Amino acid sequence: MLDQTLPDQIQQVLDAVKLRDSVTEVYFVACGGSYALMMPNQYLMDREAKAIAGFAVNSAEFTTRAPRRLGKSSVVVLCSHSGTTPETVLAAQTARAAGALTIALTHVPDSPLDVASEHVIYYDHDPMTMSPQHSAAVVFRLSFGILATREGNATAIEFDRALSEIGVIVAEVTAGHREKAVAFAAAHKREPVIYTMASGTSYGVAYSYAICIFQEMLWIHSAAINSGEYFHGPFEITDFDTPFLILLGLGNSRTMDERAVAFARKFSQRTTILDAQEFGLNRFNARIADYLAPLVFTPLLRMYAERLADAKGHPLTTRRYMWKMAY
Amino acid sequence: MLDQTLPDQIQQVLDAVKLRDSVTEVYFVACGGSYALMMPNQYLMDREAKAIAGFAVNSAEFTTRAPRRLGKSSVVVLCSHSGTTPETVLAAQTARAAGALTIALTHVPDSPLDVASEHVIYYDHDPMTMSPQHSAAVVFRLSFGILATREGNATAIEFDRALSEIGVIVAEVTAGHREKAVAFAAAHKREPVIYTMASGTSYGVAYSYAICIFQEMLWIHSAAINSGEYFHGPFEITDFDTPFLILLGLGNSRTMDERAVAFARKFSQRTTILDAQEFGLNRFNARIADYLAPLVFTPLLRMYAERLADAKGHPLTTRRYMWKMAY
Repeated sequence: MLDQTLPDQIQQVLDAVKLRDSVTEVYFVACGGSYALMMPNQYLMDREAKAIAGFAVNSAEFTTRAPRRLGKSSVVVLCSHSGTTPETVLAAQTARAAGALTIALTHVPDSPLDVASEHVIYYDHDPMTMSPQHSAAVVFRLSFGILATREGNATAIEFDRALSEIGVIVAEVTAGHREKAVAFAAAHKREPVIYTMASGTSYGVAYSYAICIFQEMLWIHSAAINSGEYFHGPFEITDFDTPFLILLGLGNSRTMDERAVAFARKFSQRTTILDAQEFGLNRFNARIADYLAPLVFTPLLRMYAERLADAKGHPLTTRRYMWKMAY
Repeated sequence: MLDQTLPDQIQQVLDAVKLRDSVTEVYFVACGGSYALMMPNQYLMDREAKAIAGFAVNSAEFTTRAPRRLGKSSVVVLCSHSGTTPETVLAAQTARAAGALTIALTHVPDSPLDVASEHVIYYDHDPMTMSPQHSAAVVFRLSFGILATREGNATAIEFDRALSEIGVIVAEVTAGHREKAVAFAAAHKREPVIYTMASGTSYGVAYSYAICIFQEMLWIHSAAINSGEYFHGPFEITDFDTPFLILLGLGNSRTMDERAVAFARKFSQRTTILDAQEFGLNRFNARIADYLAPLVFTPLLRMYAERLADAKGHPLTTRRYMWKMAY
């Protein structure tokens, strides 16, 4: 409900989650950049849930495969910034018709996704900052809230407390990278291909950057490589002139990233490493810090995108097809 | 056991699956090309399982995130061709220590993965053909077998019957594409970037082709685009000279692929479309045909890779790092 505060909207959703007879799985369903911010929530459910399964899945894949388990014991979290993404609206309708509890995140009240979903949360948006009200943070809050409600997971409160500091942390980290972003942009403005790499909670950020920033907004060829997959194929593409933008995350998966960084640095002269260890998140418990890392990487990387757009003379708002024609 | 036939090995595994008090989820765990052939099995579990959850996950991601649900009710299917992939061996050890039922597929008896896993299946291998004994087919047989054993799914028998014809189908389809593969190779031998695209059961083939054939074996930049994600970022990279290799699958997800094909064809002059509708799989029930499609695409695409390797004068066996150094 638009007249409610965001905490009230979340609480209303969790009350509905509580009223369900059972919750056996949560589907996190969206497309593109919204899908990317769902990805660490499957990780979160894997890592934290005693019995509930979590699946991050593209909206069209969700609807066409029509999971057989989908039903009254399912919670389906959907996200579309404009609320108009047809595949996500259809996914909400499909899930709701199957008896699942549908929870939509959107920036636009009364949008088709708002209308199609039983519960709606309206988030804040500013790609250069982060807050507990941003979409990526709201989905984490929902995931922890669902686990608190259904399984007594105690991390939700601690996560919310840490999250209240995220805006200040991001402002500090971003300020510290200002000159590095300008240097990155100058050095990469004529690159036809730039790979991104990450793992664990931050893989979604690397994916989003590859498909939404490099391919969509800057028309640079890209692919997001999972650090755990790098040595099983992709690393052979590495050469002295192959550019990699690598996110060194926190948590257990950091060892995978470190191994990939060591190799990429040895054989490529074009690596850019952003290290979450320098974000000052070690004041929090390691498990919490692991979820905060992608929330810092996202706006930090946006600054790198803005500077690269400046250097290329190609604004991030430029499109040749999106929103310009039927497809 | 090496002295058993493959059907006996599978039956022994399914007997063990039957003896478990409960099975709540199946993890499909591997790296690179072996991980790619696990992907359609998550799709299969989504589509066919009444209550069992399925997760395809990279071995290092599996071990480092340490799923909290992992335990006596979990089945973990692992695959490593050489049986030496350290991350997959560690994943098997982790899963077994947690009480999960571990089932390994490998080509090499007495390999570390064989030793680490409770049950082992030794598959046949020849990348230019397909048979019920190939790894990708064996994992499907396991998935259907697990669902038959635990949930009374009746599709297993029908799938096995259809699978017995796969070798002949592949030989026919491959023969029909021989000249097309030569033409593709001549036209693409100097491309620095070639994208692959697919969805549903065939996405794993597109992923495998991007990372194992293009990046690893031919040093061509690539990314596997999910057809459902194409319009949410990646399609902006499309231009008259952007090469796409697109797999038109069967089943419900075909509509996603068709939409992507229509757009890519309109704005790129470099699209190559392989259509599963031409594989003669319509003699089978549509649900079965959907699982057979990737088993045909894999050897068919291998022929395209062989011809491209010839045209480039760059054998598929060439590596600069893999197996040549410690990493």
